[in-house]
Amino acid sequence: MSAVAFQGELGAYSEAAVRSAFGGEAAPVPCESFRDVFEALSSGRVERAVVPVENSLHGSVHPTYDLLQQFHPTITGERTLRIRHCLLGPPGATADSVRIVRSHPQALGQCDGYLRRHGYRAEPDYDTAGAAKHVAQLGDPSIAAIAARRAAEVYGLTILDSGIEDAATNFTRFLLLAGQPDDAPNPVGPMKTSLVFTLGDVPGALFKALAVFALRDIDLLKIESRPLRQPTDPRRAAPWPVAFYVDLLADADGEPCRRALDHLRELAPLVRVLGSYPVGPVIDDDHR
Amino acid sequence: MSAVAFQGELGAYSEAAVRSAFGGEAAPVPCESFRDVFEALSSGRVERAVVPVENSLHGSVHPTYDLLQQFHPTITGERTLRIRHCLLGPPGATADSVRIVRSHPQALGQCDGYLRRHGYRAEPDYDTAGAAKHVAQLGDPSIAAIAARRAAEVYGLTILDSGIEDAATNFTRFLLLAGQPDDAPNPVGPMKTSLVFTLGDVPGALFKALAVFALRDIDLLKIESRPLRQPTDPRRAAPWPVAFYVDLLADADGEPCRRALDHLRELAPLVRVLGSYPVGPVIDDDHR
Repeated sequence: MSAVAFQGELGAYSEAAVRSAFGGEAAPVPCESFRDVFEALSSGRVERAVVPVENSLHGSVHPTYDLLQQFHPTITGERTLRIRHCLLGPPGATADSVRIVRSHPQALGQCDGYLRRHGYRAEPDYDTAGAAKHVAQLGDPSIAAIAARRAAEVYGLTILDSGIEDAATNFTRFLLLAGQPDDAPNPVGPMKTSLVFTLGDVPGALFKALAVFALRDIDLLKIESRPLRQPTDPRRAAPWPVAFYVDLLADADGEPCRRALDHLRELAPLVRVLGSYPVGPVIDDDHR
Repeated sequence: MSAVAFQGELGAYSEAAVRSAFGGEAAPVPCESFRDVFEALSSGRVERAVVPVENSLHGSVHPTYDLLQQFHPTITGERTLRIRHCLLGPPGATADSVRIVRSHPQALGQCDGYLRRHGYRAEPDYDTAGAAKHVAQLGDPSIAAIAARRAAEVYGLTILDSGIEDAATNFTRFLLLAGQPDDAPNPVGPMKTSLVFTLGDVPGALFKALAVFALRDIDLLKIESRPLRQPTDPRRAAPWPVAFYVDLLADADGEPCRRALDHLRELAPLVRVLGSYPVGPVIDDDHR
C-alpha cells in the first residue's frame, strides 16, 4: 500500500485518476494545493503523486509545469481520464425531487444545457467534491451536486444521472509521479519524453530547435509556447523570450533522443527534461 | 458610438478590455455565452466584439478558437490586459469591516494568500462581476467581492484594495472583432497573422509545416498543438490528427506570407487564416 498525494478533496477527479492508476493498492492523500502535493512527495511523506497536466477544454496546467521544474520528481507514467460529470443526490433523492444543483462554476457551465432542460437552479461551490460533501451534509433531497462518480462512494450519495455534460470531449491527462526512480522492470511499449526549453529572441530559433528531432525522425506529440510572459517593455511589439513545452514519442535514454537533446542544448539556453515514461491509456470512468 | 459585444456581465474583465480598446465610443453589450457574442456580431446586432483568446495562467481559450473558425469575423486588432484583482465593498465598508469575500473560485484561488493574511472568509460565486453585483445588492459592509476595477464603477462599490493577487503574471489577451472588414486606413507597425491548421499523422509533418515559414524568415509568436482530441481507438498509443494554433509576425497580404500559406496548403489538409491585424499593446488597468 503506498500513499499517493493528489490536489483536492476526496472524491475529486484527481482522486478518480489515482484509483484508475493504482487501484486498491493506493491510499489517496488529499492536498490543498499543487505545491503541497509536490512538497509531500519531495519530503517523503508520500511515495507517489498524481497531478493533472492538461485538459482538452482548458489546455495545459501551467502550475504543474512550474512545479515539475522546481521539484524534479520522477515521472513514472500517465493516464488520460474521460471526465464524466454525474448528478449526485442524498439518499432518497430522485431526478424529480431535485431543485438546486451545486458545483464548481466550470462544471455547472459544462452542464448548462442539462440543467436548463430539467429546470434545475445552479448554485456555485468551490469544487465538485466540495459540492458533493455539502450536499451529503445537508441531506435535502431537493439539493444535488455535479461531481465525479467517485464522490458518490466517498460521501454516500446516490448517482441520479451520469454523463450529463453538454460536450463529450472533456479529457484530463494526469502524470504519475514518484519521489525516487522506479525499480519497476523496464517498461515495454512506446515511451514519451516531456521537456521544457527556452529559446532566445532569434529568428528561426524554434525551427532549428525542432530540426534536432525531425532530423532524427523523432515525432512530436505536443508542442506549446507558454503564452504571454510579461515583456520587459510593454511597448515593445516583438516577442520576448519564451518557454516551450514539448512531448516526444521517444525514450530519453535511447541513443537518438540523447543525441537530439545534446543538440538542442547547443541552441537553447535552458533545457529541462521532465521525464521519460510509457505512453498511457485513456480511461473512461463509466466503463471500468 | 458602436455596440460592442463581450461575454459576461457589466463590470467583467472583458468589459474592461472593451473600454481599454474603444474608450467612450463603445456601448458594451453583455452576452451570456461566447456563442452569443459571435451570433450578435454575425447577425449585425452589434458592429464589434471583444473576446479573450489566451491567458497567462490558463492558456488558450479553446471555445474562442472554435467560434472564430465557425463564424469567420474580421480580426481588427488585439489588446493584452494585465488582470489586477480589486477588493470591492459597499459604500461605508472598510478593509476592517470586511469578514466575507465573494468571487469566482479561480479569482479566490489567485488571491488566497491575501485572504489568509487578512483573515477573510472566501465564498464562491459565479463570476467576478456577478459577485460585485451581489455585494452591491446586499449592501453589508462585512461582505466584499474580488472583481475588476471597472465593476466598482458599474455597481457603485468602493475600491478597498487593488492588485491583491498573489502572483503578478496574470495577463489576458483579447481579440477585437468586426462583422465587416475594416475601412480604417492601412495600419502602421508590425502585423500579426493567426491561423489554425491540421496535419496528418505523418512523421516530421510539423517540421515541414514550420519550414514554410522559417524558409521565408517569418517569425512564429505562438504555437500550440490543441491537446487531447478524442482518439478513434483509445488503445492506440500513436498520436491522432491534431490541430495547431499559430501566430506569425507577418501580414497575411504580404508576398512572403501569402506564398508561405500557399506552401502550407500543399502539406496541411486544413488551413484557416483567422485574421491579420496590428500587434497590440499591453494595458495595465491600474495605470491608465
